[in-house]
Amino acid sequence: MSESKRPSYAVIFPSQRTNEDPEGYAKTAQRMVELALQQPGCLGFDSARDTQGFGITVSYWESLEAIKAWRDQGEHLEAQAKGRETWYANYDVHITKIEHTYSFRKS
Amino acid sequence: MSESKRPSYAVIFPSQRTNEDPEGYAKTAQRMVELALQQPGCLGFDSARDTQGFGITVSYWESLEAIKAWRDQGEHLEAQAKGRETWYANYDVHITKIEHTYSFRKS
Repeated sequence: MSESKRPSYAVIFPSQRTNEDPEGYAKTAQRMVELALQQPGCLGFDSARDTQGFGITVSYWESLEAIKAWRDQGEHLEAQAKGRETWYANYDVHITKIEHTYSFRKS
Repeated sequence: MSESKRPSYAVIFPSQRTNEDPEGYAKTAQRMVELALQQPGCLGFDSARDTQGFGITVSYWESLEAIKAWRDQGEHLEAQAKGRETWYANYDVHITKIEHTYSFRKS
């Protein structure tokens, strides 16, 4: 994630993909990242998915209000519905407050 | 993660692997999960790494004290040093308090 501004909140989203609709999923996943980064208060993403379709996306935010506004965004609501219907076998969403961060960068 | 007990805290650990020592890394990573799960207050893990070596591990905990005890555990301290020396190009550690969780399971 970019280091320009310290986030206050993180949303942890572990998910297991079904095998269905990989092209539609990839397209929408990319669109959602683009769209979220345009939302006020969205500071960045970290995301990884393994070869078994288990993935974790963490998004970083300035405030709980910004997280709620993104949750209720129209195109995102459509993607969430499609996610439950087609793309995900299961997922969790953990809304968290960041208490402390430290980082390592190889020099 | 197991659903038996609601965690209060999550540690988010996004990391970029180097290409070095894949066998040693895999062995130690597995050992650290086993060891952490024996720590008082450790409630589980979610973990994913992609084919480019970028991964996220989230561990779930009962308290900040449990997180600190694990950070300072002897064998884990050795693994952290080896991680900075050899296995990781960079990483972040975000200590977070879980405010709210919701889940979806396909029926």
